[in-house]
Amino acid sequence: MDHPARLDALRLRLAAERVECLLVTSLPNIFYLSGFTGSAGVLLVDEGRSVLFTDGRYALQAAEEVHGSRVVILRSGALKAAARRLGRYRCAGFEASADCRTWRQLREQAGACRLRLLENVVEQLRLVKDDDELERIRRSVALNSRAFQQTVKRIRPGLREVEVAAELEYHMRLLGAERPAFETVVAGGPRSAMPHARASARRLGENEVVVLDHGAILSNYASDMTRTVHLGAASRRARALFRVVLEAQQRAVAAVRAGAACSAVDRAAREYISRRGLGRYFTHSTGHGLGIEVHEIPRLARRDKTRLPAGAVITIEPGIYIPGMGGFRIEDVVVVRERGAEVLTTTPRALLEF
Amino acid sequence: MDHPARLDALRLRLAAERVECLLVTSLPNIFYLSGFTGSAGVLLVDEGRSVLFTDGRYALQAAEEVHGSRVVILRSGALKAAARRLGRYRCAGFEASADCRTWRQLREQAGACRLRLLENVVEQLRLVKDDDELERIRRSVALNSRAFQQTVKRIRPGLREVEVAAELEYHMRLLGAERPAFETVVAGGPRSAMPHARASARRLGENEVVVLDHGAILSNYASDMTRTVHLGAASRRARALFRVVLEAQQRAVAAVRAGAACSAVDRAAREYISRRGLGRYFTHSTGHGLGIEVHEIPRLARRDKTRLPAGAVITIEPGIYIPGMGGFRIEDVVVVRERGAEVLTTTPRALLEF
Repeated sequence: MDHPARLDALRLRLAAERVECLLVTSLPNIFYLSGFTGSAGVLLVDEGRSVLFTDGRYALQAAEEVHGSRVVILRSGALKAAARRLGRYRCAGFEASADCRTWRQLREQAGACRLRLLENVVEQLRLVKDDDELERIRRSVALNSRAFQQTVKRIRPGLREVEVAAELEYHMRLLGAERPAFETVVAGGPRSAMPHARASARRLGENEVVVLDHGAILSNYASDMTRTVHLGAASRRARALFRVVLEAQQRAVAAVRAGAACSAVDRAAREYISRRGLGRYFTHSTGHGLGIEVHEIPRLARRDKTRLPAGAVITIEPGIYIPGMGGFRIEDVVVVRERGAEVLTTTPRALLEF
Repeated sequence: MDHPARLDALRLRLAAERVECLLVTSLPNIFYLSGFTGSAGVLLVDEGRSVLFTDGRYALQAAEEVHGSRVVILRSGALKAAARRLGRYRCAGFEASADCRTWRQLREQAGACRLRLLENVVEQLRLVKDDDELERIRRSVALNSRAFQQTVKRIRPGLREVEVAAELEYHMRLLGAERPAFETVVAGGPRSAMPHARASARRLGENEVVVLDHGAILSNYASDMTRTVHLGAASRRARALFRVVLEAQQRAVAAVRAGAACSAVDRAAREYISRRGLGRYFTHSTGHGLGIEVHEIPRLARRDKTRLPAGAVITIEPGIYIPGMGGFRIEDVVVVRERGAEVLTTTPRALLEF
């Protein structure tokens, strides 16, 4: 990971924003800029230097992980120490994702320094992935697909949703994942109509649809995939609904290219579903950015006019949810390229019937 | 879960703080007050009503989970809709844990309503657990202990740290946990000297110390335990260090009772370790509150003068970390009672040698 290059890219942004430094409080941003994976620390980046403030629990870990930034270990109060440094500047930026408690402490400690709230300044840098990041995401996606394949062949009526989730997560871990990227969704029958249902103690039944949505964190990068399977032969109606989702998903993937608006990719899926009379059952956006976090900018939503840059990584995941009956969703991770999408998720999309 | 009683307790606090309502943005606080476990939503509580604003993805889930609050489903912009409601009040509270982006949106939408930042107002209510919460924590702790016992007997040199973590998490899941409460720590040999080392691909060696620190979320409540084991017979030095930690941990547990200051509990462990000449190797605080989140108020730290109330649930987890050699930590969950601590973690604390 080329941390000095990332810090330099940030410095250009800071100059454009007319702040002399940025106090980075978001942990994923701190990792991106410095390599530090601890859960407590702040990073202060100015024109010439970058300093990570953390505490004794992370002394060894920071020494091992951090490149391109100096590490300062404090007994406690890393934020306070960093905030006091701000007194040296006339105008400092801080992140809009910081909480109001942090902001109050900054105001108290920073003396005459003017504080400017900056929105997504590091997140914008993270939007376009470098080669090292693409390689990590690729491996995370491949691992996640393998965990799916190892688990799905054992799925059967009578298993509890949580048991399927446990299998998935166990395989992820054995394949090297640090952790699941989010709470694994295994939702059978009517529960599949809840897009974000966590796996429950409910047993999977005969003849029902099951939505599996899971991701892994590998080498600090996320993956995210959804497949819909059917226990027993699917009804004609279930197959028809599935086909609508699959076609919508493929149309959205086909709409991806550098320069396309997020809203245009969303529209490709949404219009198709709406024309089938199912628009009101597609209750979420078409996808989201993915990288160090499983949800990053941009959102592939109706009103997001952001133009996708080459090198962005996004999910494409339309769904249809019929209350009382069930839900259908298909999700892949794709890289935005000049002429289209590079689909990283290689698992077949067809409705598996067991 | 008696949500109406919790909302009423909050209303008393709001009256004392002289705000007409509170906009709750913290998800654990929203769950505590309403039962909602979704990952997007805000709750607006005033003298007479409580309203949860969320979006279409969570319509079914909110209908199933929420009691005592009205649910409003929006196409998008739950925060914006809630913020606009603030225009009806003269003075509204919002949470210090809210991010600055949220605060800015509130200011834009709330019209003439005065906004007051309130610190830990719901967290203070959550500090004292009710019977339902204690029962959930008890079950989470028992599950976590069982997962440890099922895993530890298979630990041996040659296994990778992540494989041990995968086993632990798999057992947690099969026993019914929703997820691990935090990234499982399995740290062998010199890595055990990092208190927050994540499990790595490193293979456990012969004759080394291994620290296992893990927790589960069960029925939305956390558990957290640490045990230190030794592969092969421990050296005299390792045993001596372990005994210091165990004695310090037991002294801190013995110092717990309703009315004791957090700093006094910390001191009971810290002074003992310091008197053995090891004070500089105990690089963190003695423990923390635990409940819906694995880290809650209070902190059992040197300077925290908070007096522990009966019904609070805390961890007691001193440790000693010798760079290059290894680390030792023991952690239990205890309930603060009038006359002492009720220790929920029943797993033996002795140094297991394999």
